[in-house]
Amino acid sequence: MDLRYDTVSFLSDYGTVDEFVGVVHSVIRSISPAVRVIDVTHQVPAHDVRAGALTLARSAQYLAPGVVVAVVDPGVGTDRRAIAVDVGDGASVLLGPDNGLLAPAVAMVGGASRAFELTNSAFHLAAPGPTFDGRDVFAPVAAHLCAGVPLEELGTEIDPAGLRPSIVPVTQLDGEVLSAEVLWVDVYGNAQLNVDPDEIASMGDTVVVEVEGRTRHATRVQSFAELGTGEVGLVIDSYGLVAIVMDQASAAEELGLAEGDGVHLSGSGDEPRRDPDGGFYQAVTLRARQS
Amino acid sequence: MDLRYDTVSFLSDYGTVDEFVGVVHSVIRSISPAVRVIDVTHQVPAHDVRAGALTLARSAQYLAPGVVVAVVDPGVGTDRRAIAVDVGDGASVLLGPDNGLLAPAVAMVGGASRAFELTNSAFHLAAPGPTFDGRDVFAPVAAHLCAGVPLEELGTEIDPAGLRPSIVPVTQLDGEVLSAEVLWVDVYGNAQLNVDPDEIASMGDTVVVEVEGRTRHATRVQSFAELGTGEVGLVIDSYGLVAIVMDQASAAEELGLAEGDGVHLSGSGDEPRRDPDGGFYQAVTLRARQS
Amino acid sequence: MDLRYDTVSFLSDYGTVDEFVGVVHSVIRSISPAVRVIDVTHQVPAHDVRAGALTLARSAQYLAPGVVVAVVDPGVGTDRRAIAVDVGDGASVLLGPDNGLLAPAVAMVGGASRAFELTNSAFHLAAPGPTFDGRDVFAPVAAHLCAGVPLEELGTEIDPAGLRPSIVPVTQLDGEVLSAEVLWVDVYGNAQLNVDPDEIASMGDTVVVEVEGRTRHATRVQSFAELGTGEVGLVIDSYGLVAIVMDQASAAEELGLAEGDGVHLSGSGDEPRRDPDGGFYQAVTLRARQS
Repeated sequence: MDLRYDTVSFLSDYGTVDEFVGVVHSVIRSISPAVRVIDVTHQVPAHDVRAGALTLARSAQYLAPGVVVAVVDPGVGTDRRAIAVDVGDGASVLLGPDNGLLAPAVAMVGGASRAFELTNSAFHLAAPGPTFDGRDVFAPVAAHLCAGVPLEELGTEIDPAGLRPSIVPVTQLDGEVLSAEVLWVDVYGNAQLNVDPDEIASMGDTVVVEVEGRTRHATRVQSFAELGTGEVGLVIDSYGLVAIVMDQASAAEELGLAEGDGVHLSGSGDEPRRDPDGGFYQAVTLRARQS
Repeated sequence: MDLRYDTVSFLSDYGTVDEFVGVVHSVIRSISPAVRVIDVTHQVPAHDVRAGALTLARSAQYLAPGVVVAVVDPGVGTDRRAIAVDVGDGASVLLGPDNGLLAPAVAMVGGASRAFELTNSAFHLAAPGPTFDGRDVFAPVAAHLCAGVPLEELGTEIDPAGLRPSIVPVTQLDGEVLSAEVLWVDVYGNAQLNVDPDEIASMGDTVVVEVEGRTRHATRVQSFAELGTGEVGLVIDSYGLVAIVMDQASAAEELGLAEGDGVHLSGSGDEPRRDPDGGFYQAVTLRARQS
Repeated sequence: MDLRYDTVSFLSDYGTVDEFVGVVHSVIRSISPAVRVIDVTHQVPAHDVRAGALTLARSAQYLAPGVVVAVVDPGVGTDRRAIAVDVGDGASVLLGPDNGLLAPAVAMVGGASRAFELTNSAFHLAAPGPTFDGRDVFAPVAAHLCAGVPLEELGTEIDPAGLRPSIVPVTQLDGEVLSAEVLWVDVYGNAQLNVDPDEIASMGDTVVVEVEGRTRHATRVQSFAELGTGEVGLVIDSYGLVAIVMDQASAAEELGLAEGDGVHLSGSGDEPRRDPDGGFYQAVTLRARQS
């Protein structure tokens, strides 16, 4: 086993009902038997590139070095590019469609060293139809990369700066009111915001949370269990961001929050004001790392 | 590690909520630690032998050589037979109940070389009750097969021609109208038909799709993204069959289609007619391969 | 690969929608690459320690020797202890929160040899926030245990007798009526009771099942398929306990049963009476094994 990479981390919106995930595992196993495939998740909502990109970014720093296959790909079968992005000067390679899915994860681990378009069909499976690139393109390419095929043989080198960026929301401070957005609602109903703890440090122990004109007081706590029944809190979550939570209950359900919703935070002495213009966005570009 | 087989591919209707799948993995690991188990899917609808058989058949040509364990088994605990079917003269062995679940996959990979009933309980676990043959029969037999136990020791050789066939629907052409059936609705809502692309080659770029007396025009496309919002299309799917699809939306929901439903296809110049007798079926038999 | 343990069995209430399970796999892989992680299930209902404990206990005797990581942990971030429980004099080690989750499984495999609190943060990941101990505490500790780090280095030895017990319901016989409880409803709708087959041996072939004042006759059978459509039966399930079942239908739905519900069983000659006081409980303590 002299593998170039020994782990493939795999994320998709394939779900677990159909055989898609198992078939991708099988294709990798057939080409490079010693490779271990780790499923990050396959329950990204169908076609939701933004949710997939954020999930991959949250996971990125914890993944074992190797190849990452990410497939949330509503443009499959069109001329959207299938790409390989090298990060850490060969430490890992991310494979996926060029639709912004990979961009936040690449930024999180330090930027792209190089990028390639997967144009060499010698490393793909012959496909009866063009709608399952996870099986026909990304799985075999991942397996061949693990086996030692160099990136240069997989296709044409392209400029990382030309890859599709991902749009992530940024907060905006308007007087005393911080306009934020729900990045993620997890299975427990915790609502992660795009808010760094520093941004609410001056708001005190109780923060006013305003959602669509309704306000709620939230207590800053370290753990869920510090909250009483029905009480809403703010924690620094396991990714270092501020999240709206409850104890053994769904804060998202209680406050009617979904991914992408706007939230306004202010100190409890202040009246929160609404931002009539909605969110503010900033592009994350797959640019080469600063050395 | 001098294993006879090093991969077990595992499909069932166990779901992922209970511990059934994990326990099967654990039993195999305990007996043959070096074997890798690949989950095809465990979310076949409960007791739905037909759906399980079609899922396994779609996956079959992509599975790594080795042992396949398939368990959709409403007759567990009765005198239905537990069987092993050798394919490719020992290239792989499929294990499961003799209820038609394995038949389409066996046919797909070239037919049965030999078959055995798993009557030798020396290779089973002692079971507190007779309702979990995945754990008590198929998992330990799979692990022992991987470790090199020959098929002959697992039980009595039986005639593949006597195994339970699977019933798969075939299309019928009535004048200009092709009567077909939905084989599979995937997680995205794409509805795979039992229709080969050749069968609709003469129908032109727009095909009339009739479902329960309601008609809809479907555009033949290569990729989902060629379709406008709300537009219905036909693609050659990743298994080489014709599927009714939409772009980032569920065609099955839009047309009210479920697995097993009848669909009538005709060229857009023709008025589709209904087939009053419903579908037409043909048996897939586990017969020995033609050499 | 001279691993002390080569398998981690992993159970949680993390679900499979978010990336939690994949990240735990990745952390273990990064620290001890040769370890195999087997997912028991991750769909324990959120925060349901009792359900998690029963699932782990059902699985325990089938798990491969090694490390078990179990995380259903509503108290994460509080001063509840994170613990390691040695069983079988080092044969396996169970890791989890000290909230009763591990107790029934430990009892099932013969009791605790030793126990430790995981106080040595040198074997944890630096955590941005304190709410994901699966990733930050249990995964790295499991990986280090597999690599050979002795339990003594992971933290302070503690008395197993002082660990949080688990509460499991026991049956009560009142005249001819056995008051029981639903331990588990599986994906097929089978309702496992806390009833040993011996307890109903004298009730004959037909047993009266009373749920909330409504009675139903249940036939004792060996397999589901012996039951007619709509007929309710009792089987000895695959764990050796009595379960209320139907053939290819959900007995739990038919009888309106959920986990924790009370059920009264009696011979069909007798009129069942209700137990006004509800269930009876007994503590399972993590005491040292009797040698």
